[in-house]
Amino acid sequence: MNAIDQLISKIKEKNNPTVIGLDPKYDQLPNCIKEKYEKTPEGVAKAILEFNQTLVDNICDIIPAAKVQIAFYEMLGLPGMQAFYETCKYAKQKGMIVMADAKRGDIGSTAEGYSSAFIGKTKIEDSLYGNDNIDFVTVNPYLGIDGVKPFIEDCKKYHKGIFILVKTSNPSSGELQDLKLENGRTIYETVGNLVENWGAELVGENGYSSVAAVVGATYPEQLNQLRTQMPHTFFLIPGYGAQGGKAEDIALGFDQNGLGGIINASRSLMCAYKSDRWKEQFSDQEFGKATRAEAIRMRDELTGAIQK
Amino acid sequence: MNAIDQLISKIKEKNNPTVIGLDPKYDQLPNCIKEKYEKTPEGVAKAILEFNQTLVDNICDIIPAAKVQIAFYEMLGLPGMQAFYETCKYAKQKGMIVMADAKRGDIGSTAEGYSSAFIGKTKIEDSLYGNDNIDFVTVNPYLGIDGVKPFIEDCKKYHKGIFILVKTSNPSSGELQDLKLENGRTIYETVGNLVENWGAELVGENGYSSVAAVVGATYPEQLNQLRTQMPHTFFLIPGYGAQGGKAEDIALGFDQNGLGGIINASRSLMCAYKSDRWKEQFSDQEFGKATRAEAIRMRDELTGAIQK
Repeated sequence: MNAIDQLISKIKEKNNPTVIGLDPKYDQLPNCIKEKYEKTPEGVAKAILEFNQTLVDNICDIIPAAKVQIAFYEMLGLPGMQAFYETCKYAKQKGMIVMADAKRGDIGSTAEGYSSAFIGKTKIEDSLYGNDNIDFVTVNPYLGIDGVKPFIEDCKKYHKGIFILVKTSNPSSGELQDLKLENGRTIYETVGNLVENWGAELVGENGYSSVAAVVGATYPEQLNQLRTQMPHTFFLIPGYGAQGGKAEDIALGFDQNGLGGIINASRSLMCAYKSDRWKEQFSDQEFGKATRAEAIRMRDELTGAIQK
Repeated sequence: MNAIDQLISKIKEKNNPTVIGLDPKYDQLPNCIKEKYEKTPEGVAKAILEFNQTLVDNICDIIPAAKVQIAFYEMLGLPGMQAFYETCKYAKQKGMIVMADAKRGDIGSTAEGYSSAFIGKTKIEDSLYGNDNIDFVTVNPYLGIDGVKPFIEDCKKYHKGIFILVKTSNPSSGELQDLKLENGRTIYETVGNLVENWGAELVGENGYSSVAAVVGATYPEQLNQLRTQMPHTFFLIPGYGAQGGKAEDIALGFDQNGLGGIINASRSLMCAYKSDRWKEQFSDQEFGKATRAEAIRMRDELTGAIQK
């Protein structure tokens, strides 16, 4: 089954178009975890892994996918990278679809290397080595098709998927992405068209391609417009919760069947234990339960808004 | 001293505006290295490190800087990442300026993580941890200033530098970068202007900023145009040699003092031992000497063209 169909199947099974962002920073960890480890990159990497594993244990039956933001692991050096691989492995073992949020992009020969690192294979003599715990990786389109093609080839070969940045959720995303071209279209619309075309060969049985797109929840008009413009492109939608995106905005990224997107939440799920909503009900030690409670609340809020 | 002044000072010292790309793939290694290690990611990572160290030993007195392309290390997993860090460390110890070619870019809070990983510091309680062996990192501008600012802050704090993608060297770079906006300017010109502005506060004593740009040698007209348009922006110029850029083209990226850029060569230097030019003169075992011979030839060719 192609990657996007696997993801859609999991979303249907859990009736929940949510992906949990596993992007913890040291300061976000509860004291009950922090105090068990040394205050060094090695110790923090271990603390983060335990934190992630506890979260996964508490939500893997209700959330279909985990997105692991590699920046927060790279910043801890080698021990951090080990925690990244272990986190992907653990989420995969628990039945989740795993997305590496790496936003890689480079010239063709280098993009081949990146693709091998995440969704493809590295050939050494007659053996192939790869990371079987990652299903999707995010990709930056600034270099054009050369930089994307190696990823698409690996999507075909290994039944994997990619999310290409189209319209990002950050405040300055418009600085480049919203500029208008001579033909009256914006850069993000233009990239959107490219992505829709690049993905044509990988459209699966649900009508969506494994070559998918990142479109932020923080710009609901554009999200709605791109949903119409890119009928075969599945959306990874960041920006819900801490970044300000609301459920009714996000519903605009979905089709009439309530499909077509998955919504990322990182801080609002990871740090539920210290949120105004849950901190009275759950202690620090119960951080996993707080995340579970928030995951259920979020699921119900989102499915309510999408199915309206 | 700010990072770009350190780089320019090294370039002047060696009279050589070259950066060696240390981006080896397994297939490019000479047999005398390959046969010493196991045919596994661990073995290949060690082989690559030995290869890099030998190259560095052979050129560190004539080439001022090394650019380490992280994709080729990530594709070997954790052992590969270890070889990446060790390669940076070795080149730095040998007095070279070290550039991590990572092309990272993300929303603000994530870009902070990436910046900490390469040129900044990671704070754990009251301690700061960082990679002191990296001077520059490459950055992707697609997310706008939010995604670049954390890197610029670290440039200020820690005397480091960044190269932001403006016009890349690959065949499809124009697919997005050459599109014309309503105002008649291309996307790459627009990014060029942004980079020139973003770097204003970090201009050093040579008139160039530590916020620098990547501009490919394979598009000489654009290189020339950007040199005029971006008078305070130093250029990292890939595309020489294997990718097709010629010395006389590259000269267009330099100012009237013969400054303003550094030219990357990866394959043509790394694989000199099996090039038509040097394979008769040097055996496989002498791969380091072949790279040195090619480095001297390249230096003389480039300085000849630039100083014309």
